[in-house]
Amino acid sequence: MLINGSQFLDRVDQLHHNIWLNGEVVNGPLSTHSVFKGILNSKSKLYDLQHDDEHKELFKGYSEPNGEEYSFSFHQPKSKEELVRRGKATTIWARDSLGMMGRSPDYINSAIMCLGSGAEFFSNGGKEFGTSINSVYNHAKRNDLSFTHTFINPQVNRSLLHYETDENIIAAKVIDETDKGIIIKGARLLATQGGITDEILVLPSGGNYIEGEYIYGFVIPSDTKGLKFLCREAFNYSDSSFDHPLASRYEETDSVVVFDHVLVPWNRVFLYKNHQVAMNFINETGMYHYLQYQAVCRQIVKTECILGLAEKIVDIIQIQQYQHIQDKVNEIIIGLEIMKSLKVASEVQGTVNNYGTYTPSIQPLSTAVQYYTKFYPRLMEIIQLLSSSGIISIPTEKDFQSEIRDDLNQYLQGANADAVERVKTFRLAWDLSMSAFGSRQTQFERFFFGDPVRLAMGSYNHYDKQPFVKDISQFLNLEKGKL
Amino acid sequence: MLINGSQFLDRVDQLHHNIWLNGEVVNGPLSTHSVFKGILNSKSKLYDLQHDDEHKELFKGYSEPNGEEYSFSFHQPKSKEELVRRGKATTIWARDSLGMMGRSPDYINSAIMCLGSGAEFFSNGGKEFGTSINSVYNHAKRNDLSFTHTFINPQVNRSLLHYETDENIIAAKVIDETDKGIIIKGARLLATQGGITDEILVLPSGGNYIEGEYIYGFVIPSDTKGLKFLCREAFNYSDSSFDHPLASRYEETDSVVVFDHVLVPWNRVFLYKNHQVAMNFINETGMYHYLQYQAVCRQIVKTECILGLAEKIVDIIQIQQYQHIQDKVNEIIIGLEIMKSLKVASEVQGTVNNYGTYTPSIQPLSTAVQYYTKFYPRLMEIIQLLSSSGIISIPTEKDFQSEIRDDLNQYLQGANADAVERVKTFRLAWDLSMSAFGSRQTQFERFFFGDPVRLAMGSYNHYDKQPFVKDISQFLNLEKGKL
Amino acid sequence: MLINGSQFLDRVDQLHHNIWLNGEVVNGPLSTHSVFKGILNSKSKLYDLQHDDEHKELFKGYSEPNGEEYSFSFHQPKSKEELVRRGKATTIWARDSLGMMGRSPDYINSAIMCLGSGAEFFSNGGKEFGTSINSVYNHAKRNDLSFTHTFINPQVNRSLLHYETDENIIAAKVIDETDKGIIIKGARLLATQGGITDEILVLPSGGNYIEGEYIYGFVIPSDTKGLKFLCREAFNYSDSSFDHPLASRYEETDSVVVFDHVLVPWNRVFLYKNHQVAMNFINETGMYHYLQYQAVCRQIVKTECILGLAEKIVDIIQIQQYQHIQDKVNEIIIGLEIMKSLKVASEVQGTVNNYGTYTPSIQPLSTAVQYYTKFYPRLMEIIQLLSSSGIISIPTEKDFQSEIRDDLNQYLQGANADAVERVKTFRLAWDLSMSAFGSRQTQFERFFFGDPVRLAMGSYNHYDKQPFVKDISQFLNLEKGKL
Amino acid sequence: MLINGSQFLDRVDQLHHNIWLNGEVVNGPLSTHSVFKGILNSKSKLYDLQHDDEHKELFKGYSEPNGEEYSFSFHQPKSKEELVRRGKATTIWARDSLGMMGRSPDYINSAIMCLGSGAEFFSNGGKEFGTSINSVYNHAKRNDLSFTHTFINPQVNRSLLHYETDENIIAAKVIDETDKGIIIKGARLLATQGGITDEILVLPSGGNYIEGEYIYGFVIPSDTKGLKFLCREAFNYSDSSFDHPLASRYEETDSVVVFDHVLVPWNRVFLYKNHQVAMNFINETGMYHYLQYQAVCRQIVKTECILGLAEKIVDIIQIQQYQHIQDKVNEIIIGLEIMKSLKVASEVQGTVNNYGTYTPSIQPLSTAVQYYTKFYPRLMEIIQLLSSSGIISIPTEKDFQSEIRDDLNQYLQGANADAVERVKTFRLAWDLSMSAFGSRQTQFERFFFGDPVRLAMGSYNHYDKQPFVKDISQFLNLEKGKL
Repeated sequence: MLINGSQFLDRVDQLHHNIWLNGEVVNGPLSTHSVFKGILNSKSKLYDLQHDDEHKELFKGYSEPNGEEYSFSFHQPKSKEELVRRGKATTIWARDSLGMMGRSPDYINSAIMCLGSGAEFFSNGGKEFGTSINSVYNHAKRNDLSFTHTFINPQVNRSLLHYETDENIIAAKVIDETDKGIIIKGARLLATQGGITDEILVLPSGGNYIEGEYIYGFVIPSDTKGLKFLCREAFNYSDSSFDHPLASRYEETDSVVVFDHVLVPWNRVFLYKNHQVAMNFINETGMYHYLQYQAVCRQIVKTECILGLAEKIVDIIQIQQYQHIQDKVNEIIIGLEIMKSLKVASEVQGTVNNYGTYTPSIQPLSTAVQYYTKFYPRLMEIIQLLSSSGIISIPTEKDFQSEIRDDLNQYLQGANADAVERVKTFRLAWDLSMSAFGSRQTQFERFFFGDPVRLAMGSYNHYDKQPFVKDISQFLNLEKGKL
Repeated sequence: MLINGSQFLDRVDQLHHNIWLNGEVVNGPLSTHSVFKGILNSKSKLYDLQHDDEHKELFKGYSEPNGEEYSFSFHQPKSKEELVRRGKATTIWARDSLGMMGRSPDYINSAIMCLGSGAEFFSNGGKEFGTSINSVYNHAKRNDLSFTHTFINPQVNRSLLHYETDENIIAAKVIDETDKGIIIKGARLLATQGGITDEILVLPSGGNYIEGEYIYGFVIPSDTKGLKFLCREAFNYSDSSFDHPLASRYEETDSVVVFDHVLVPWNRVFLYKNHQVAMNFINETGMYHYLQYQAVCRQIVKTECILGLAEKIVDIIQIQQYQHIQDKVNEIIIGLEIMKSLKVASEVQGTVNNYGTYTPSIQPLSTAVQYYTKFYPRLMEIIQLLSSSGIISIPTEKDFQSEIRDDLNQYLQGANADAVERVKTFRLAWDLSMSAFGSRQTQFERFFFGDPVRLAMGSYNHYDKQPFVKDISQFLNLEKGKL
Repeated sequence: MLINGSQFLDRVDQLHHNIWLNGEVVNGPLSTHSVFKGILNSKSKLYDLQHDDEHKELFKGYSEPNGEEYSFSFHQPKSKEELVRRGKATTIWARDSLGMMGRSPDYINSAIMCLGSGAEFFSNGGKEFGTSINSVYNHAKRNDLSFTHTFINPQVNRSLLHYETDENIIAAKVIDETDKGIIIKGARLLATQGGITDEILVLPSGGNYIEGEYIYGFVIPSDTKGLKFLCREAFNYSDSSFDHPLASRYEETDSVVVFDHVLVPWNRVFLYKNHQVAMNFINETGMYHYLQYQAVCRQIVKTECILGLAEKIVDIIQIQQYQHIQDKVNEIIIGLEIMKSLKVASEVQGTVNNYGTYTPSIQPLSTAVQYYTKFYPRLMEIIQLLSSSGIISIPTEKDFQSEIRDDLNQYLQGANADAVERVKTFRLAWDLSMSAFGSRQTQFERFFFGDPVRLAMGSYNHYDKQPFVKDISQFLNLEKGKL
Repeated sequence: MLINGSQFLDRVDQLHHNIWLNGEVVNGPLSTHSVFKGILNSKSKLYDLQHDDEHKELFKGYSEPNGEEYSFSFHQPKSKEELVRRGKATTIWARDSLGMMGRSPDYINSAIMCLGSGAEFFSNGGKEFGTSINSVYNHAKRNDLSFTHTFINPQVNRSLLHYETDENIIAAKVIDETDKGIIIKGARLLATQGGITDEILVLPSGGNYIEGEYIYGFVIPSDTKGLKFLCREAFNYSDSSFDHPLASRYEETDSVVVFDHVLVPWNRVFLYKNHQVAMNFINETGMYHYLQYQAVCRQIVKTECILGLAEKIVDIIQIQQYQHIQDKVNEIIIGLEIMKSLKVASEVQGTVNNYGTYTPSIQPLSTAVQYYTKFYPRLMEIIQLLSSSGIISIPTEKDFQSEIRDDLNQYLQGANADAVERVKTFRLAWDLSMSAFGSRQTQFERFFFGDPVRLAMGSYNHYDKQPFVKDISQFLNLEKGKL
C-alpha cells in the first residue's frame, strides 16, 4: 500500500496513545494537537509526495507479485541502481523539510526492510524469530507504516564499572515470560516522535548489558497497553511559520519510553536471549549501512540548504567581498563536497549481502557520520558569524501586521531585500541555529549515531591498519634485522 | 541616592514608555508585564543588595560632600584600591544572576561616570557640552538611575563602499537644530533593555559616518516624545524558574530604537559635530576601559558558574574518570584562569588619566574581550558534550507535579542525584546553552564589543610591534648591511 | 619508449646543466653528486618499476600505432577505466617513496599529456602554437622524458596594488622576439628538481600580469643556454638511510629559475600574448584536473603510510588503550577515507572533454586539495604527539655501530620492538615531521596548489550556490511577496 | 662568585666528561668542539652579561654576609620585588637568545635555590639529607655552577599496567648502598645539555614507581665515574650564523643519561626512600613554581621575538593590508598578552612559603605552561603561513659570496628590504619553525612540563571546583529539596 497524507493522518488520529506532555496526558486527535500538528502535517506532505507526478519515477513502481504497491522505503535494493534510486527518493523527502526532519518514515523503514530481508539470520536464534520479523516487515510494507525506535538505556550512571541491580529496574528488561509473550518493565531513551508513529522498534542497547533479560528485539504498536511516552518540553512555541519557520513545522519531540509491564506477543519478538544474534544482526542485515545511508542523504540536503541560506544572508547584507566571509562560506562548500563524495563512494563500493540486499559500503558512511558530528556545529557557528546582529533583531509576524510596519520596513531592510525578506531570512537562520528547536537539532546531529568519542574509539579499533604498518616495516627493512 | 528594589520598580512603572512587542504596544506597569517582570525583578534584587548588610563594605560609603549617598557604580575611582573595590561590587552583582545579566546597571553607569568625570574634555567642543555631561552625570548619581544605550547603526548594507543618502534616512541623524535642541530622525541598534531603563545613552557609531549630522552624543529619558523601542521576540516562553531558570529571570530583550523627530534639548547634548572629540573621547575618558573592566568581571563570574555547572553534571552522571571529560572541564579551568589573570593585570597596570580617574590598563582588557568571543562558544559546546542526552530529556515542572512523577523519579535519577536535582541541573545547562535565551547569550558574548574580525584588525593595527621588529633586526645584524 | 632506471640516469648525466648550490656551480655527473644522487636513484627505481613483472598490467601495454611503447604517464585516458588504471600506476609509483616524492615524473607528464592532447585549443592563438605543443608532447612520449616546471613569479611584493616596471625586471618576461624565437629575461619560482630533469615546462603565472610580455608558455631542455637553476640549501644532511630515511632518498631541492636572455625557439612556444588562451587552457585541456588527480593519488598513499607509521609507534610503546591516542589515530583514518572517497567521486563523475580526454571531475579533486592543506599539518602534529620524547632520543647509525651499542639496545628498546626497530621507526617519524626535509614537505603540501586563502576565495567564487539560494527563497515563500 | 664567560668556558673545558655523539666519544675541550661550541659560547655570553654595566641593577648586588657576590639565579627571593627583579634578569638572559635557550643556567639554578632554601624539609627524611642539599646549594652558589637535570624514565612501555622487573633494569634505580653512598644503575631521559654543564640534578620521576629503589634525589658532577651521556644527532648542521642563525648558536643537544654503577656519595644524596618527602618536596619548596616562572619569563621573550619576526616578514613582502594576515599576527599578540598577564598575576598573588621564599602563585603559571603547549605550535604555523614560498627559497651565505650574488640580489629582494635582509629574515623564520633545530624547539615547548594530556588531567584533578558547584546548587535551590 502506498498511502497519502490524509490516510496517514486518519490512522494516526485513531491511535489510543498514552503520551504525556507538560504534566498532562495528550487527548484528542494528534493531527490537530497544538504540539503535534506541525510535524504530522509535515509528514503527511511526504506521503502526498509519493503520489506526486513530478517524482513518480522515484516513488512509484514498487509492487508485490500480486500488484500491490508499496513504499520505496520498504523496498529491498538488489543493485547499485536500486540503492541510488532509493537515495534519490530520500533526497526528495529530505528537501521538503530542508533536511530538518530527523525521523522521516524512511529512516526506521530502512531498518525494518533490512531486518525483514535478513529474517533468515534471526532464525538462528529460533525459527519463530525469523517468522516474527518477516511478518513485522510484511505488515509494515502492506500498510505503509511508520515507526519510532529506541536503542539506548537511560543515562543514570555513565561510570565505567556501573551495573544495575534487580531491585532497582531502570533500563527496560524482560521480567517475565508467558506463553503469550515476554513482559517488559523499565525505561528506554530517546524516542523521537515517540507515540505519534504507528509502531515502535525496540532493539538491544549494547553497552554493559550482557545478561539475557536485556537481550531482546521486537516491534509493537505505539498504543500497546502499558506503553507510555513521556515527552520533553515541546519547542514549537509559536504556530507562525513566519516566526518559527522550522519549529512550527518540524518539532518532532523526544520522549522517554516507559514499559509498565508491557506484554510483547511472541509473534512480535524477533530476538531474545541470543547473544550471538544480538552481536551480529546489525552488520549482518545491513541495518547500520542503510540507517547511515539514509542519514547521509538527509545531511547532504541539509548542508545544501545551509549553504543556500548562508549565501542568501551574504547577499542580503552585501558582505561577499570580505575575504573572511568567502572563507567561511567556502568551508560549507568543502564539507558539502566531502559528504557528497562519501555518499558516492558508499554507493559504488557497495556489495550484495547474504540476503540479497545491495548494501552500501560502510566505511565511507561511518566516516561521513563521524565527520558530520563536528562539521554540523561549525555550520551553525558560521551562520551565526555571518548573521551578526541580524539574527537578533527579529520582530514577529504580528509586528509586521501592526502600525510599526513602516518603521520595520524602513529600518530593517537589507541592501538587497526588503524588510520582510530580510527578517524572514534571519528568522530562518535563527530557528536553524539559535532557537530551542535549532539547538536541539545541533545536539541531534552531534550525537546522531551515539557519543562521538565512542564512535571514534570503535572506528579506530575496527579499522584494518596492519597492511599500512607492514608497508612501513618493509620500507624500514625491519625484517632483515639489521641497521 | 542609593535606591532599593521597590524604589526602582516604582520608578520604572511610572515611565510613559513607547515599547512595541509582538505587534502590540506595551501597556500598564512594566514590573508586572509578563515579558519584563523577570528581568525587572532580577534588577530590583541588585538594588536591594546595595542595602544588604553582608556586602556593605562594597556598596556603602560612597557619598557626596553633603553626605548624600550614591551607588558604587557612579563613583570615580582614583586609585587601584578603589578600582578593585568597584570590581568586587560588580562581581557580587554579577554572581546574583550567574553573570547572565549582560546589562546590569553598573555597565552603562561606568560609561556615565567616565564621561561625566571627563566633562572637561567635552568642553573642547564648546563649554556647554562639558556642562551638559556634567549635569547628566550628577543627575544620574543623585537619583541612582539606570540606562540603556545604543552605539551602532542598522545592519542594512555592510559592503565596504556603502554610503547612505539624504533621501533615505536609516541610521539616526540630526535633521534639524533649533534653539531648544537638535532633532533626530532614523534608527539605531540594538538597545538591550530598551525602554525599561530610566534613560538612554546615545553615542556616535563610528564607521563610515564622518559627516557632522552623524556626530552627536546625548542622554535622554526613555519616555522622551518620539522615541520608540521595537523589541525582538521575547525568549522567556515560560514563567517557571524550574523550566526556564535563566530566561524566566534574565531575558532582557533587545530593541531597535526609532527616533521619530525626537527633540534632544541642548542641556542633554554633550557632543555635536566635533570630529576630534568624537574620535578621542572614548579613550580619553577611560570609558572603554571601564566598560570592558565591568564586562570582564562579569564574564569571570559567568565562567565560574559554568565550571560549577560542568562539574555538577560530571558528578551527577559519574563521568569524572574519563580522560576526555577531564580534558574538557580543564579547558574551562584554563580559560577561567586566563580571564582572571588578565583582570588582575589590568588592575595592577592601571594609570590615573587626565581627569583623575584611575583607569585599568586597556591591553589586558581588550585581550580578555577578544579571547572571550572565542572561548564562550567553546564553553557552550563543552556543556553540551558533557550533557549528551541528558540535556534533551527535560520534562517540565508540571510533569513533576503530575501522576507521571514516579516514573520520572525512577527513570531520570542520576547516579549522584535524585530526578528533580538531575533535571533541574540539565535544565539549567539547556537554558544556558540551548534555549533561545541561551543562544542569544552566546551571540551576545561573541559580538560583545563588536564584530570579532574588526576587533582583531583594530588590535593588530594599534599594537606597537616595532620594538620587537627592532630586536629581530638587531639579532640579524641587519644594520651592518653585511652577510 | 619506456626507459629503465639506468637509461634515465645516463641521460641525466649527459645534461650540460647550470645549477648552483651553496655558492658553487654543480660539476660532474648528477647521479653521483652528493646532493642529487638520492633523488635521482629514487627516480630511477620508478623507471625500473615500469619493467617490473609484478606491475606489468599497469605499466605495459601503452603503444603507438607503430608499436612503440610509451609510459602510462603520457597516455591520454579516454574512459573511466583508463583513468583509474592510470591512477593505480601513480599509486604504485607513489608507494615506492611513501608518497614523499612530490614531483615524480607522472606529475608534469600529466600536464604535458593534457596540453598535447588539447593542441587544437592552442591553435586558436595561431596554428603554429598547436603544432608546437603537439611536437613537445610527442617528443616527450617517444623519449619518456621527465620535466620540472614553474608557474609562479618571485615573491617580492605581495601587496594588492603592486605592479612591476620595465626598468626593474624581476618576474621573467619576453624582452624581445626574433625570427628564431622569443627572448626571456627574469626569474621564476620555484622549480622542484630544477635542473635535474630533462626539460622544463613554463606557464604563465596569472596574478596581476595581463600585459602581453608575461603571457607565454613553452618547454625547453634543462640545459638551454642562459638558463640557471639557483638551489636552496639542500636538506639531505646525511647519506645514511638509517639516520635520514627520507631526506637521503627524496630530497628534491627547489630552485629559483633564472632566465638570462634565454632564446626559446618558436617550435617550443605554444602560447604567446593570447589572453583568451592563457585564461582558459588550464580548464579546457583538463590539465588542472590531471595534476590534482595525480596529487590526490599520491596524497592518499602518503596518508596510508602515515597511518601505518602512527600505528607502529602506538604498538611499539604500547599506548593503544588510551582514548586520546585512539582518537588521534582515528583522525588519520577519517581523513584518509575522506581523501579516498573524493578520489572515487572524481573518477565516477568524470566526463570526456572537447579533445577526447576522459577528465576526472574537478570539484572533488579541488576539495581534496584544499582539505589536505589543513589535514597534512595536523597529521604531522599527531605523529609528534604520539611520539613524545621518542622522536627526540634519536641516536645515529654510527652510534649503533659503536661500543655504546649495548646501552642503546637496553635503554632504547620498545615494549614491542628492539632498540634498532624502535629507533628506526622514530627516525622515520622525525624525518617525516621534524627534520628540515620533513618540514619542507609540510610547507609543500600546505601550499601545494597555491596559497590556501586564495584557493578558498577561488573556490567560493566559482561554486554555483544559486540553486540552493533559490531553494531557501522558495521555502520562505519569498516570491509571493507576503508575510 | 659571579663568573664571566671565559671562566665558564675554562671550567667546562676541564671536565673529564663521557659524552657520546654519532658513534664517537667526544674528545678535547668542549668549547671548541664543532657541536658544542655554539651553545657554550652562547652561554658564556650570559655570564658576561652578569658583568655588563647596562644591566648591573639586575645582576649585581647579591652577596653573602662575607661580601662574596653570587648570581641572581641562586638568590632566594623573599618579597614580590625580589621575585620581579629575578624575572627581569631572566628576561635579559632570555632576550640574548630570542628565548631559544631552553636550559639557560637560571632554569635549574632555580631548582637548586628552592631545594637548598627548603633544606629543612628534606631533613624530615633524615637530618643528613637536609645537610646534603644545603651543601649542594652553597657549593653551587659559591662557584656559580650550571646544571643539567633528568626527571623522567625511558619511554619503553607506556601502557597503564606496565611494571619493570628486577632482571631487566631500564629505569635507573638504586641497586646497592654502601657506607660511601648509593649505587645507581640504569638510564634516565632526557638531559638537555647533558655532559656540558658542571653538575647534574637527578630527581625521582614519579609515575608508577613507588618502590624505594626508585625514590632518590641527588646532585653529582657531570664527570662522575660511570656516568655517560648518549647524545642524539646534533642539529647544528652548519656553523654559519647566516645560514642557521639559531642552530649554530643554540643547539643544546639532548642525551640519554646512563648510570653504569655510579656511586653517589651520601653527602650528595638529599632524598632517599622517603615516599612522603618525594611526594611533597616539589610543592613544598616552591621548585615547580620557580621552574615554571623561569620558563614563562623565557616564553614571553620568545613570543615577543616571534611577533617581531612575523611583523618583519609582513613588512618585507608588504602583506599588512590583508585581513587574514592581520588576524594571524593578532593571534600572536593575544597570546603574548595572555602570557604576560599570567606572569603578572603569579607575581602579585605570590606568598611566602614555609622556608621564607616568596613563591609566585602556581595557578597562573601552570595555566601559562599548559596554554603555551598549544599556542607555540600555532605560532610556528603562523610563521610558515605568513612566509609562504619565502621560507623555501633560502640560498646560503656562500651563494651570496659567489658569482650568482647579483641574481640573488635582484630576484630575492623584498618590497621593503634588499635580498640579504630578506633572506636573512626568512632563514631565521626557517630555523625557528622548520629546521631540525626549530622542530625540536616545538616539541620541546609542547612537552615542556610533561605530556600535555597528563598535565590537563592533573590540572583538572587538583583544581578546587566545589565552591562553584555549590553556587550552582544554591542557585537551583537544591538544598530545599523541592521543585
